[in-house]
Amino acid sequence: MVGGGALYEKLTTMMTSDHASVVSLNIFVALLCTCIVIGHLLEENRWINESITALLIGLCTGVLILFTTGGRSSHIMVFSEDLFFIYLLPPIIFNAGFQVKKKQFFRNFMTIMLFGAIGTLISFCIISLGAIHFFQKLDIGSLKIGDYLAIGAIFSATDSVCTLQVLNQDETPLLYSLVFGEGVVNDATSVVLFKAIQNFDLSHIDLTTALHLLGNFLYLFIASTVLGIFVGLLSAFIIKKLYFGKLIRHSTDREVALMILMAYLSYMLAELFSLSAILTVFFCGILMSHYTWHNVTESSRVTTKHTFATMSFIAEIFIFLYVGMDALDIEKWRFVSQSPRKSIGVSSLLLALILVGRAAFVFPLSFISNLSKKSQSEKIEFKQQVTIWWAGLMRGAVSIALAYNQFSKLGHTKLGENAIMITSTITVVLFSTVVFGLMTKPLVRLLLPSSKHIIISIPSPPSSPKSFSVPLLGNGEDDVGGNGPIQRPSRLRMLLRIPSHGVHHHWRKFDDSFMRPVFGGRGFVPYVPGSPL
Amino acid sequence: MVGGGALYEKLTTMMTSDHASVVSLNIFVALLCTCIVIGHLLEENRWINESITALLIGLCTGVLILFTTGGRSSHIMVFSEDLFFIYLLPPIIFNAGFQVKKKQFFRNFMTIMLFGAIGTLISFCIISLGAIHFFQKLDIGSLKIGDYLAIGAIFSATDSVCTLQVLNQDETPLLYSLVFGEGVVNDATSVVLFKAIQNFDLSHIDLTTALHLLGNFLYLFIASTVLGIFVGLLSAFIIKKLYFGKLIRHSTDREVALMILMAYLSYMLAELFSLSAILTVFFCGILMSHYTWHNVTESSRVTTKHTFATMSFIAEIFIFLYVGMDALDIEKWRFVSQSPRKSIGVSSLLLALILVGRAAFVFPLSFISNLSKKSQSEKIEFKQQVTIWWAGLMRGAVSIALAYNQFSKLGHTKLGENAIMITSTITVVLFSTVVFGLMTKPLVRLLLPSSKHIIISIPSPPSSPKSFSVPLLGNGEDDVGGNGPIQRPSRLRMLLRIPSHGVHHHWRKFDDSFMRPVFGGRGFVPYVPGSPL
Repeated sequence: MVGGGALYEKLTTMMTSDHASVVSLNIFVALLCTCIVIGHLLEENRWINESITALLIGLCTGVLILFTTGGRSSHIMVFSEDLFFIYLLPPIIFNAGFQVKKKQFFRNFMTIMLFGAIGTLISFCIISLGAIHFFQKLDIGSLKIGDYLAIGAIFSATDSVCTLQVLNQDETPLLYSLVFGEGVVNDATSVVLFKAIQNFDLSHIDLTTALHLLGNFLYLFIASTVLGIFVGLLSAFIIKKLYFGKLIRHSTDREVALMILMAYLSYMLAELFSLSAILTVFFCGILMSHYTWHNVTESSRVTTKHTFATMSFIAEIFIFLYVGMDALDIEKWRFVSQSPRKSIGVSSLLLALILVGRAAFVFPLSFISNLSKKSQSEKIEFKQQVTIWWAGLMRGAVSIALAYNQFSKLGHTKLGENAIMITSTITVVLFSTVVFGLMTKPLVRLLLPSSKHIIISIPSPPSSPKSFSVPLLGNGEDDVGGNGPIQRPSRLRMLLRIPSHGVHHHWRKFDDSFMRPVFGGRGFVPYVPGSPL
Repeated sequence: MVGGGALYEKLTTMMTSDHASVVSLNIFVALLCTCIVIGHLLEENRWINESITALLIGLCTGVLILFTTGGRSSHIMVFSEDLFFIYLLPPIIFNAGFQVKKKQFFRNFMTIMLFGAIGTLISFCIISLGAIHFFQKLDIGSLKIGDYLAIGAIFSATDSVCTLQVLNQDETPLLYSLVFGEGVVNDATSVVLFKAIQNFDLSHIDLTTALHLLGNFLYLFIASTVLGIFVGLLSAFIIKKLYFGKLIRHSTDREVALMILMAYLSYMLAELFSLSAILTVFFCGILMSHYTWHNVTESSRVTTKHTFATMSFIAEIFIFLYVGMDALDIEKWRFVSQSPRKSIGVSSLLLALILVGRAAFVFPLSFISNLSKKSQSEKIEFKQQVTIWWAGLMRGAVSIALAYNQFSKLGHTKLGENAIMITSTITVVLFSTVVFGLMTKPLVRLLLPSSKHIIISIPSPPSSPKSFSVPLLGNGEDDVGGNGPIQRPSRLRMLLRIPSHGVHHHWRKFDDSFMRPVFGGRGFVPYVPGSPL
């Protein structure tokens, strides 16, 4: 996001191939392998997930290094925002878009937008106001109004990565698409909010500034989405026109390479135009799975599906390992050790604000969303509302990256209040991921007992990049037409239903008559010699 | 390889996400896409290959940037040894090992070792002696004996990447395995030689130093191979024992992630122990394709095969684009423009030495190798010898990386003689890749007319990571037993035949009775539910 002088040091620490950094890379790669193996062995255990494993292994390694170096250093790589935002986040968000169940996602589009945009704004306001109100009493130094608003944005960013590991798209499709879709929009919203706070003059907030902020937010949202759609369609068009399949060799390599590179290009283009790269790459992923993926050869389909999933998988483990290892940085904790009570106070306060801030939008917005649904099965039950509330409490690498950006401009935490904010962020992330994360699986099992079924997947070449399994819950994908008794919709329901049913029908017609003939897609693929159709 | 102070600048130029570098990344990714598309469009043209396309596009972009910045800068990324040796080379060499036809490779093992090790030494001696003899007359400044020996090592490193693109494993299997196998051993030999030259005190060379060098070389060769074999077997063992296939979800992601990470780990471990990482990752690739690949699920097999090929493909194009863009760096050419005749003299001399140095070992060693072969079809004909000689004349990124290492210790080419050596290396690389590269395809077609057949591949899930196509030349893979008339082998033939026939038979027995039951492999895979066997 924002390059700084400190990056010189960070990147060279991280990337130069002198002996020390070769050692670091070795340890890191070996730890990644260990996480995968241990994560596999713990798969049977329904309480632990891979994120927590990686976080704990990272912490243990940090402790080990702390002892072996005699307390001088605890990390082999310093957390770098760039590494996170430029290399680790794109594959995760792209894969999420690529593998998302599109019908579920678009059917719940309005609800997702309500939760992701309005909900994040509510949470942001509550956390900011709470911080302004309570931090004065804790006497933690001179934070400016910009800092308080930044704290609101930092702690409104839910950890969609961890959420993905806890919920299962096949077991709880409605919840998954709501929580995950919200997570993506939420990431985008908090990053956009954060940028807006850093750019605007916040010494005097009035209606004009607020409207300006809102306009900026809408511009970023729409422009990012359009860019993602454009790049996705471009990739489909190029691959359809060039017709790689006819080639003798390299056709799969070329197709896969083009898809990977164009997905990455969409992310970097959004960064170039200062848009929300997360939103762009997410929509690029959706478009690619709808059009591009159907234009390539059979082996490219299997390869891209699993390659994107694997890249995302490695990036996720990398992030949690990284956060775990970085958490024990001595320098940051030196300030805190002088005033442990203050630090614990700040962390607990933030956790409480996160709990309240999320409750303050999940339950009211669920109520509003339910008003628009006609059938009982589409409504969000109270138990599901609790699950949505709980599943979004975890804070992760986005929060840490934003906190570093705001509170360690030069890579060092010289000021006491900055050190406290960084360590509090780490504490909140560790606590929420481990404690809330550990409790999520049992909670889901308790509240939604139908999801304890185990689905046996069939690892054969799939016909679509979606997961192989058949959803077990009642919300099947093909009942869009609606066979239930016809009810007269209320006015609010009419308003909110437009995007889900009417638009979807028109979209299907438009897609079949104009889009697919140009951009390919299922059923509109040219004959590829040698490809079993 | 060797970290330097200049890397601080290079890496930050390259990786920080301030606006300039986001622009660079965008241009670079867009150019990579362009190269793939143009490479596809030129596929029909048998003269051009993807490397040359990328090189030319890189040069054109360099010229464009030169004009738009008003002559201030011509490259958007400075060539970084680390980027090359740590991120771009490993996937290429690993993929080469993973996809190599193992039988062909091991059957010609002795010949490959002759060409790769002894041949490179001969070439190294001739180029070094030639440089010492002729450079004095050109008066290009004060080069030390170490510099001359380094020049020998730099220009003995053939470009195996470009070679791979020119020859085709399925059309000319014998030539491919010889030239490519030689390329891998040659890379390793020249890097080892180069390291040895930098480490040893070369002020007085005597027999002890020479023997020490030889011992060092043998140690590096054997240790690197053993490490590669060890990591490859470890990956097979872990994946076989853990039995990922039984899992409900993530099994393919886990398997693919483990294979990628362990392959990379083998490379980084070799760097850690200062071994030849190229050899290690090559043998790790061979072992993984022989054991590990058979232990994973069907979809993991398809995915790994194409993912490794794609990563290698992107890395190759990246390198050539990079070299093309870096070639026009103003600063380097400033010194040269003061003495253009001197620079042209050095470049031509080096090209001549490369031609002579390679001829000096290809023809004699082919003769020796032919003495050991009983059947006419196994012998290397004269036409094939010419092709081998020609196909190894190209110099590439390894040469450039080594030249930067030797002649620009601080990232700047302050001294006139250093600037001339860098620009001469770039000139040799550009000239040999473009001119020799362009002439290789027609030459192969002219000398070996049988290879003009076009093979239609069947892009269905393969049964082995080797290429799908059936080799057309007579050297089928299954005539190891030898059905020709029994001849009494000469003593030299006996000596050289041991590794190819006797050892292969014993190896097969050993493999079937001890190795495969432990490490898996074809026919020794546990039953995986859901995997079509």
